[in-house]
Parts: sequence; structure tokens; C-alpha cells
Amino acid sequence: MPRLQINAQRLRSTLVELAKIGGEPEGGVTRLAYSQEEAQARTWIIDRLAEIGLAARLDAAGNVRAVRAGQTNAPTIMIGSHVDTVPHGGRFDGAAGTIAALEVMRTVQEANLSTTRPIEFVVFAAEESPRFQAGNRFGSRAMAGQVTAEDAFRLVDDKGITLGAAMQAVGLDPVQLERARRTVGEIAAFIELHIEQGTILAEANSPVGIVTRVIGTRRYRIELTGRADHSGGTPMGARRDALAAAAEVVLAVEKIANGIGGSLVGTVTTLQVEPNAMNVVPGQTVLGIDLRALEVSELDAASEQILETVNTISQRRRIQPCVQLLRDTAPISLSERIQAVLQTAAARAAIPVRLVPSHTGHDAISLNDLTDTGMIFVRNPTGQSHSPAESVEWSDYAAATQLLLESVLLLAENSNA
Amino acid sequence: MPRLQINAQRLRSTLVELAKIGGEPEGGVTRLAYSQEEAQARTWIIDRLAEIGLAARLDAAGNVRAVRAGQTNAPTIMIGSHVDTVPHGGRFDGAAGTIAALEVMRTVQEANLSTTRPIEFVVFAAEESPRFQAGNRFGSRAMAGQVTAEDAFRLVDDKGITLGAAMQAVGLDPVQLERARRTVGEIAAFIELHIEQGTILAEANSPVGIVTRVIGTRRYRIELTGRADHSGGTPMGARRDALAAAAEVVLAVEKIANGIGGSLVGTVTTLQVEPNAMNVVPGQTVLGIDLRALEVSELDAASEQILETVNTISQRRRIQPCVQLLRDTAPISLSERIQAVLQTAAARAAIPVRLVPSHTGHDAISLNDLTDTGMIFVRNPTGQSHSPAESVEWSDYAAATQLLLESVLLLAENSNA
Repeated sequence: MPRLQINAQRLRSTLVELAKIGGEPEGGVTRLAYSQEEAQARTWIIDRLAEIGLAARLDAAGNVRAVRAGQTNAPTIMIGSHVDTVPHGGRFDGAAGTIAALEVMRTVQEANLSTTRPIEFVVFAAEESPRFQAGNRFGSRAMAGQVTAEDAFRLVDDKGITLGAAMQAVGLDPVQLERARRTVGEIAAFIELHIEQGTILAEANSPVGIVTRVIGTRRYRIELTGRADHSGGTPMGARRDALAAAAEVVLAVEKIANGIGGSLVGTVTTLQVEPNAMNVVPGQTVLGIDLRALEVSELDAASEQILETVNTISQRRRIQPCVQLLRDTAPISLSERIQAVLQTAAARAAIPVRLVPSHTGHDAISLNDLTDTGMIFVRNPTGQSHSPAESVEWSDYAAATQLLLESVLLLAENSNA
Repeated sequence: MPRLQINAQRLRSTLVELAKIGGEPEGGVTRLAYSQEEAQARTWIIDRLAEIGLAARLDAAGNVRAVRAGQTNAPTIMIGSHVDTVPHGGRFDGAAGTIAALEVMRTVQEANLSTTRPIEFVVFAAEESPRFQAGNRFGSRAMAGQVTAEDAFRLVDDKGITLGAAMQAVGLDPVQLERARRTVGEIAAFIELHIEQGTILAEANSPVGIVTRVIGTRRYRIELTGRADHSGGTPMGARRDALAAAAEVVLAVEKIANGIGGSLVGTVTTLQVEPNAMNVVPGQTVLGIDLRALEVSELDAASEQILETVNTISQRRRIQPCVQLLRDTAPISLSERIQAVLQTAAARAAIPVRLVPSHTGHDAISLNDLTDTGMIFVRNPTGQSHSPAESVEWSDYAAATQLLLESVLLLAENSNA
């Protein structure tokens, strides 16, 4: 029997089609967490599953789930990713993994393939953080039992809408969130395909990566309160300029991250200025700091230096700082068993792969608490991500999807695999 | 005949009453340029004028005008200020001058005083800049023929509403703007009372100031375009972080202003970050820079150094800068004739005064093109302005209002003055 092959043309056209939902004239895509656009994308995926005879359902968190029966009721082999995006994001982050998993389902359905274990398709809800900040990976964390209905009503977007209310607005019931939870043993393995959000593969000339370890993330919200004064009438020396203080923090975070080096990156990603009026010395600023590293020790060193610097700057500038830790996710290692399966599958399919760390968070982190988890990365030629310029070579994407298929067949125990 | 006296109790209670329009629970006042709240304040003032038998009308720009007839039809002596505020502003900026002028009108009406020249009361529309940026002093500039209907439809607030549309929403007709224009010779003198937006008077222990010179203002909008990248996946060295570049500009403006010294102050007052998302390296920032000085040479030096620094930072950080000059108002000297009248009046009324510069822009700048213009400043104990904490001693405010009355009587040629 010839080796089962994914349909690269269909893979590509389906991804392009999905990008129309929330697509923007400039080429970007905006499907925010728990928005109408994300819901529309979910429905579109459910319709595609129905076309191939797979009945999908939404769980209480808004995750799409569809199980393709195996010869046994053994724990499932799960594949999938997310369809929400950052504002003005690209076509691949989340979507590439979702459409690759859909292509795997289409290929096995088309071939009428029989596997011992059931194969489960999933689209996680609300993976991205821009809308609800610490509410990222909400769907996959709900599946892993890591979030509650209380969390849903505590998290608020910049329009004052709670994550819970946003869920209700797209027909979900956050009160039932607990019902989205899966238990250890129900899922035998989870594999997520994702575009690399960096250039490790591009620099190594490798089309496809197998992820070994995922960075940890630590996020802070820092509020700096100075005093709003008239920008004409207030002498330079009499000011308590919250934006000048924030500017020092921005540059300090950059300098500290460069100083620590290693796998650490640190960024002030968000900044709001109050009153942000042309003739008023800024009275208050709110900064969002995003730290990532593969080692806890690197995160600890950065946090310590940054918080010390915030205090020094605040004292010198007569600013009142208020520091809040928004998120602290430790770095994790992914399953060595799944890495081995991925390597075996790659060797069989003659797809060159490279072991790489992930510098970005993914739904796979949530699933790692439930089951053996693996990730496949697709080379990103420019490393651009969370931007309309995000792209892949279609042949790399097809190879990575083929690797996903081969791995699923190995894990689901198809006799032809 | 005893000297005519303003009613300090009425002055205070009227100011407190006006602060309720657009008043906020935390004590601030928000009556933005061409907002419903500003319109409501205008109507309230017109009602107060009607109570004392003065018919007011709105001109095409939304300026309130009421003329109290003199024995002749000679050019008028005009007094007044504005009632719009910055967001979450104080009770005194604009309102203090408006209510002082109202108190003068009430006092002369009550005394049934006869003057040779007519006295004209004015409330200028839309003095503040936060809503329409370069649209500040719009009412007084319309009176001086310095703005057009085209300007009204070119200026846009942060909700995308043009100044012209905002005017229409409060019943004004921007197309008729030209009709608000006054010509040289119609107004014999203009005096504006205003809270000092600084601490020169407080530091000199002087309750009241006579303004000699008003600072010039130069404003820039600087757009810095870098590249939005994933904040986890992008190595520190590969970034084109538009916020880090903006932070350098913020600190450079502060340093340059400190270095030039003299009367110059320089501030980055506004900053917007795109996409301002927790996991994205900022791709674009827009800064608003506000420079003020009493000498053009100081503004020139600051502009040159800042623009050079923006280029240096942009080149080093691979940022695309786009610099736009939003406003360039030269410093001006106020009328020496009016300063002399103010000093004579102060001496007669035994009010200690001090000659001071104004570090802030005022409607008086617009009127200076039409007529001899003077300004009275009220001491500001803390210097705080454009903030709910803005305040004056009531006795200082009463003294300054008495000085306004005495000066008007001298200028309007009251036989008892």
C-alpha cells in the first residue's frame, strides 16, 4: 500500500480561505479571543468537518472537538491548534496548525483508514493574549482544568467587557466551564503544528522543527503615578512626569534583557498614557512587561533587576509605582516519547527535521498537564509573527503537515503506518 | 461716591456652580471643546446674563457675546475667557476668567453705572487642545480671522469626529465661520483674567500678576515605524522596537529642554503604541511633543536638537521616522498701554501686583492680533493646572477680579473711575 499523502494544494487553499474570516484589506487578519470573528471561524471549521462526515461539538469553553472513531475506545490521539489571532495578525499563527489538523482528518477520512485508537480533532478557543491579557490559552487551560468561571468574569478587555461576557456574546456559557475539563488518561497524546515565531529553523536551513522545550513567560503590569501638570506652565524641575519615568523603564528592560542574554528576551509591549493630552505633562502610565526564557533562573534574574530599577527610577522621579505580576508560567519540557515518535515519522517520510526550543507559548503547554505532548514547527523565513507579514514556504508547510499525519498514524496504531 | 466693589461671595459661589456642569465625582471637570458640556456651560452663562438684563448671542464659532451699551458707540472694552476644559481638568482654567468677567458685568449693571465706551463680555469657544490638538483657541482664532471652515473639517478628534461635525452637533454652523470674524478697530481693548498655570506668583508671594509676554508654542507629531514581531520569538538583536525608540525620544526631549534652559520647557505629552498587545514587540508609536518658550531662538534650538536626535535614534534602531510640525505660534508681547492701565488700576485699588510672563497659551494671543490686549493672572499656590487639584485662594481671586473691574472702568471711561 502506498504511503498516505496529504493534499498540499487543498491544505494551501483551505488556509487561504480561512484567512478571509476577519481578513483585512491590508492583508492582516483580526479574530480576537471570544470575538464574533473567532466564532465565525469555528463554525466554518465545523462545517468543513461535517463535509467529511465528522460531527463536531463545542465544549463549554468554545473548543471545537470532533472524534474520529478507532477500532477501540482507547484514549484518543489529539491534534489541533487555535483560530483566534492578535489584532492585525498574520494568516498562519494558530490557523496553520488548525488547517494542518483538518487536512490530516480529511486525508484519513478520504482513505477510509482504520486506526486502533480514535483520532481527535480540536480547535482551542482564545489562545492569544492581546484581548484578555492573562486570559490567553483560555480554551486549552479550561480543558486542562486550569481556569474557572470566576477567572472568566475577573478578566476584562480594554472596553471593560469581561471574558465571561464575551463568551456569552458568542453563545457560550462560562458558568459551565468546568464541563470542558478533560482528565488524565482520556487523551493518549497531543500534537500541535505551529508556525515558528522566530528564525531558528530558517537560520539552520531546516524546514521543520520538533520542539523539545517551551519557554516560560512572566508578565508584569506596572502602573507609574506621577502628577498631571500643564506642559507650558510647569518648570522642568518641578515635574513628576510619568511618561519620562516609563521611558526609563522601557530602556531598562531592554538593557537588562540584553545583559542577561541566554534564552531570555524582555519587552515592554504595551504602554498607556494618562491623560495623553497635547498640553498636559503625563500624570500616569501603565506598562506591560513580557519576559520569556527557557530557564527559570533567567526569569528570576530579569524580574529582580527590573523591579529594582523600577524602584530606583520611581524614587528619583517622585513617582508612585505599583507592580502586579500578571502571569508566571514556568518553562516546560515536552514529552520525550512524542519527540521520538516524531523523529521516527520524519525519518520514514524523509522529512529533514531539527530539534528546537519554542520561545513562544502555545496551547500545547496547557495540554502537557493532561497528556504526552509534542509540537511540530514550520520554518518562518523572516521570523515575523503576529503581523500581516507572517509567512511560510508552502512546501515547508506541506512537509510539516505530512509529518503530523505520519506521527498520528504511528500513535493511532494504523497497521499500515 | 464710594469705590465700586465686586461681590466676592457671589464670585465664588458662581464659579462653584459652573463647575457642576461636566463635574465629576472625583472633583474634576470635563467640558471638552465643542462638546455638549461646553454648550451647556455656554447656555448657563447666557441665562446668567439675561438675569441682569444683558442679551447675549452666539457667533458662528460658538463664542458668547454680550455688549453693555455705553454713552457712545465707540469701540468696545472686551473681557472674558473660555469655559471648555481638558479631560478631568480643574474648576479654574477658563472658568475663573469667565466668571470674573461675569462678576464685572453684574457689578456694573447692579450699580447702573454709566460708561463712555460699551463693555463687551465674551466666552470663547474651544480654547483647549486635547480634543482637536491644533484646533485649540478655535473660537478666539475665528474671531481674529485666523481659521477657516476648511480647518474645521480638517481637524479630527480621536474618535474620528471632525471639529466641524462637533460644532454642528451643538447647533453651530462651521460654514458660516467667517461671520465670527471681527475687524481691527471694533474692539478698543481686551483683558483676560486667568489662573496662573505655574508658580511664579506663588514663589514671589504676589496674589495677582500682570502679564507682559506670552510664550510661543511649537508642537510636533512624530511617527516612528519599526516592525511588529512576536515578543517571545524575536531575539533582542533582531528587533525594530518602536516603543524603545520612542522611549529614547522621550528622554532626549527632557534632556534637551533641561540643557537649553532659559524659559524653554519641552515635553512628550502623548504617546500611542501599536499594536499595544501583551505579546507583540511594538511596531509603531506616535509621539506628541510640546515645546514652549518666551524666545523664538529657544524654540529653534530645541527643535533642531530634537529632530537631529530623532534621526540618530531612528537610524541606529532601523526605525522609519515621520515628523510633522503641528503648530508654530511665536512668543508675543502684550500691549504696554494695557499693562500701564492695569498697573494704575492696581495702585488705585491697593492690590499688590507683579509683572510676569505667561508660560501658557491663551485666547488673549488670538485677540492680540485684533486689539490692545492684557492679561491678569491669579496666583496658583501649587502651580497645578489641567488637573482636579488646580486651585486658588478665594481672596486672591477676588482681588484679581476687582483689578479687572477697575481696569475696565478706566478703559471704558467711567467718570467715577
